[in-house]
Amino acid sequence: MPSRPDDLDPRLGDLAEGDVLRAILSRTPPSSSTLVGPGDDAAVIAAPSGSVVATTDTLVHGPDFRLAWTSGYDLGWKSAAVNLADVAAMGARPTALLVALAVPRDLTLSFVERLADGFREACAALAPGCAVVGGDLTVSETLTVAVTALGDLDGRAPVTRGGARVGDVVAVAGELGLAARGLGLLFGRFRVDGAPVPVDPSRLGPGESAMIAAQLRPAPPIGLGPVAAVAGATAMMDVSDGLALDARRMADASGVTIALDRGALGSDPDAALAGGEDHALLATFPEGLLAPGFRVIGRVTERGSDALTSDGAPVEVGGWDPYRDWDAVGG
Amino acid sequence: MPSRPDDLDPRLGDLAEGDVLRAILSRTPPSSSTLVGPGDDAAVIAAPSGSVVATTDTLVHGPDFRLAWTSGYDLGWKSAAVNLADVAAMGARPTALLVALAVPRDLTLSFVERLADGFREACAALAPGCAVVGGDLTVSETLTVAVTALGDLDGRAPVTRGGARVGDVVAVAGELGLAARGLGLLFGRFRVDGAPVPVDPSRLGPGESAMIAAQLRPAPPIGLGPVAAVAGATAMMDVSDGLALDARRMADASGVTIALDRGALGSDPDAALAGGEDHALLATFPEGLLAPGFRVIGRVTERGSDALTSDGAPVEVGGWDPYRDWDAVGG
Repeated sequence: MPSRPDDLDPRLGDLAEGDVLRAILSRTPPSSSTLVGPGDDAAVIAAPSGSVVATTDTLVHGPDFRLAWTSGYDLGWKSAAVNLADVAAMGARPTALLVALAVPRDLTLSFVERLADGFREACAALAPGCAVVGGDLTVSETLTVAVTALGDLDGRAPVTRGGARVGDVVAVAGELGLAARGLGLLFGRFRVDGAPVPVDPSRLGPGESAMIAAQLRPAPPIGLGPVAAVAGATAMMDVSDGLALDARRMADASGVTIALDRGALGSDPDAALAGGEDHALLATFPEGLLAPGFRVIGRVTERGSDALTSDGAPVEVGGWDPYRDWDAVGG
Repeated sequence: MPSRPDDLDPRLGDLAEGDVLRAILSRTPPSSSTLVGPGDDAAVIAAPSGSVVATTDTLVHGPDFRLAWTSGYDLGWKSAAVNLADVAAMGARPTALLVALAVPRDLTLSFVERLADGFREACAALAPGCAVVGGDLTVSETLTVAVTALGDLDGRAPVTRGGARVGDVVAVAGELGLAARGLGLLFGRFRVDGAPVPVDPSRLGPGESAMIAAQLRPAPPIGLGPVAAVAGATAMMDVSDGLALDARRMADASGVTIALDRGALGSDPDAALAGGEDHALLATFPEGLLAPGFRVIGRVTERGSDALTSDGAPVEVGGWDPYRDWDAVGG
């Protein structure tokens, strides 16, 4: 939805880089962690722990999103959220985003303004105190949003995926499988002759709007990352590629087996195991400890012949590789 | 130059994301600042100053480079160097790079391996102690390299572009105009029917190889950023868009006029003023102080009617806007 009439909505190709960056940055105010904000060669961000957590993740038009389904606001929100989740998964508090945009010349200014709104609102909702501190703008035929997120550990050690210990409980916070079901709806119901068309809410049944929202505007439990670390999580990671694949990664990194309780995986355990892009937090806690917001889904056992089991049997469900899977669906 | 025969050089589209990232990261060893390296949700990097300097800059195929002219190694080197220069321009020591790659499916693995070699060698040559700590890989029709660089101030205040004071000397370290002359050679001499063709060294006259190298593998004086800060630089910035434009930016940010001495700008002052992509360091120092490696090119005066003068006359040469200019050249 453009924020102004079309004839007042210039194309980015007709503007200078500085004008576009100013339009973005005027909509994304700094936070108290921003010591030097946008406008200089680099930003300076507080890192009171004496270390900084850093991660980068990119959304590319085609493989990662389609403009018929995703608004500028959605795109800004999701590209912030997926990076914030990686910071939270280390047990850290997000402090800053850097945004590198590569934009087609015919994209409108209002699209980029809504993108900036999405960054701002995702930070406000998911990670208060985090702000956009810098950016870069380039021309490209392929709309690309590369975000780097920084965070602070508040003096704690990072919680890696390699710390799970035999006897720990395995727990999760956030949704499992919902975003993938949303993606399935988009590809199954909102294409004409293979090409994506806008989502028509009147064609969504009960619960389906939440699936679409989980795909387009995921709301991972960012604040629970530091909460889990304070509570004593021994290992933690972001579930971005499906529980089946990511729990295996945690088991391999920790040298253990993760034994899931299938009954704890909701009404559709296979969807919970396979679905990607939820950005739930998977964590392990010593017996008797569990952070608020987490639910137990299994137990850490000694490494057996399988890294991951469900009710004692090997998990056959494969993982999610966005590098292959989103794009392979076509459309 | 592929590092293996073609039949052993798979296309990226036939590999999983993890395989490609491992190939990159195995060629880019961590540094002593890397507290948690690649392989987890996020990296953790030492920030002993209690703050972190952060910047991002992207190179996109078409607007920013052409594969006929730029090898994988060159691309890795340049995308590291331009980001390292922004960290150095704050007076900071680069500690880490995060690399977000968006790659066409038919790109070869060896190209990406050489890209990683370029990152590693640029860090080793320009910013020892800096390392690639994380990355992301996505599929895109447009080859895109988005780099974020982090740095530490070693306890000093950042040197912004807004600190120049009346009476300071204006100085520069590094080349002015050389990279733009290299770009001119590429567009003027190494295209056939408008399309880029590989550089034939036998068609380069004396000094021209250095121009091409300055464009494809710039070697900005990264180490001199902290040196200038220690020496007492009052303002500093990276000259990426040409001295004429960047010196105006410094003058505007500082509320002063920068009065250049045309005789100090080398044999072709207009080229030195206009040319972009050199990534020289522009700094101001109190009278009597000058960091090693810097040469005086002017003086800071009270703000007059022009932000920038040369031998007392307004500078007519315009600036460089890579967002518009590289692409507008076509080819």
